[in-house]
Amino acid sequence: MAGKVVIFGVGLIGGSFALALKAAGAAGTIVGVGRSPQAMARALELGIVDAVAASVQDAMRGADLVLIATPVAQTQAILASLLPYLEPRTVVTDAGSTKSDVVAAARAALGERVGQFVPGHPIAGRESNGPDAAIPDLYIGKKAVLTPLPENEPADVERVASAWRACGAVIHQLSPQEHDKVFAAVSHLPHLLAYALVDDIANKPHAGLLFQYAASGFRDFTRIAGSSPEMWRDISLANRDALLGELDAYLAQLTGLRAALAAADGARLERVYANAQRARRQWSDAIEAAEAPPQDTAE
Amino acid sequence: MAGKVVIFGVGLIGGSFALALKAAGAAGTIVGVGRSPQAMARALELGIVDAVAASVQDAMRGADLVLIATPVAQTQAILASLLPYLEPRTVVTDAGSTKSDVVAAARAALGERVGQFVPGHPIAGRESNGPDAAIPDLYIGKKAVLTPLPENEPADVERVASAWRACGAVIHQLSPQEHDKVFAAVSHLPHLLAYALVDDIANKPHAGLLFQYAASGFRDFTRIAGSSPEMWRDISLANRDALLGELDAYLAQLTGLRAALAAADGARLERVYANAQRARRQWSDAIEAAEAPPQDTAE
Repeated sequence: MAGKVVIFGVGLIGGSFALALKAAGAAGTIVGVGRSPQAMARALELGIVDAVAASVQDAMRGADLVLIATPVAQTQAILASLLPYLEPRTVVTDAGSTKSDVVAAARAALGERVGQFVPGHPIAGRESNGPDAAIPDLYIGKKAVLTPLPENEPADVERVASAWRACGAVIHQLSPQEHDKVFAAVSHLPHLLAYALVDDIANKPHAGLLFQYAASGFRDFTRIAGSSPEMWRDISLANRDALLGELDAYLAQLTGLRAALAAADGARLERVYANAQRARRQWSDAIEAAEAPPQDTAE
Repeated sequence: MAGKVVIFGVGLIGGSFALALKAAGAAGTIVGVGRSPQAMARALELGIVDAVAASVQDAMRGADLVLIATPVAQTQAILASLLPYLEPRTVVTDAGSTKSDVVAAARAALGERVGQFVPGHPIAGRESNGPDAAIPDLYIGKKAVLTPLPENEPADVERVASAWRACGAVIHQLSPQEHDKVFAAVSHLPHLLAYALVDDIANKPHAGLLFQYAASGFRDFTRIAGSSPEMWRDISLANRDALLGELDAYLAQLTGLRAALAAADGARLERVYANAQRARRQWSDAIEAAEAPPQDTAE
């Protein structure tokens, strides 16, 4: 149970964290901090936060747990702004989609106090944003990945883990580098590819005709191209090295498939398609098994 | 109203066509033809067809409308097999995902009788296959694209259109070349890209770790990689020229994005992402408006 919880950014991610902690009775007071007075007023009105802080100093006084749930590019400035008021009792965490850059930002901003910062990333989302999109069950059954630093006290890591567990999340740990490599492959690259396809089609002279015949396969494939361009610009840049590595591997794969197609090498195309189908089905079955409710194993 | 309808291939597409015609009372007798005795028996058992033909000759006797709903690579052999029994009254159509190759196959198989073949492509599908996947409302509100030949009689084109309309579909007409160019962009390329990504990930040494963290964005982006490898091998080869053109345009787009990422050109990344997001939203809004029930415009 965290006493005073401070949340920077009470949109979908920060707001859902607040609602989940409240639903679990796992927080005393929840205080919001943000740049938009309208969003903060809305978060107060919706009961997401108990109070809106008048200043960072005010927010940080007596804080037990701080969550930074803003676009990742703002993390360093926020950490620098709270450092003068960071009490020894306070643990700070974040919800950013990239971790190596956040760790670098934390080291730059917090210096020798970086041990009080436990980097994190909840793997959950919705297509909508802002305080109105926040829901208390966003994290139930989802993964919350922590990427602890050598400087972190185990008790501080546990305090963050325990808050996410109260929200219903399952805790995983990776190094920041592992985290970024994994998400470059399974999240950041697919976003770039989906944006690239829709932009490519939209720029063709007969785009109207093309969109007219796009159907459900296209809809699912491009759903992530409906995501925030600013947020994904920041993620792409923040995880540039890992994303470039994944993009280069994918370009090599496409170049190989192009050659197979040009040579009418149906056997090679089918091998790639069949391997993908098998892997996709195994993954999908494993996910369904993991998310199924526990079964009574007695007859 | 078609009297005797013959369907080659009573899986998802052919079976749903049969069930929809029956539900609309738009067919007299429906006869199935297929290579798998099990599938034909199942189609009979499910009430999809009224009879299973003992031979192609038997099936074609007195047929008004014939639908070929098999993988496209089989079209030419099926047309050649039915030609000796093709009565002047009979109109033949197909449901293949590519049209230029089907037209070439029809010309090769039917020769001067090609005017009795009206090429078609219903834009509908589900993830499952076979007779058990067939449902009567698969085509409701969906597009059925016809790509008529100069040799087709307007009355024969109308007979095919009218059958699809009875199934609930909305008729569109394109030339075979237009059709293939459009679907290369909005369907065939996305399938290839999704297969390529999953195969690429599955072949990495740390594939297990990667799949463990794949979430809902990955699930939607790769859903079409769960499709039949054989079917998509055939489509890729059948529409090779148009698909190579789209793949080359996409590779050029990715190469440009790679350069922007390597140069940390956030403004360019954001322009592409934002253009894609805007186009995706416009498309999505237009689809929703088109599929919404008619509104009473009176106050």
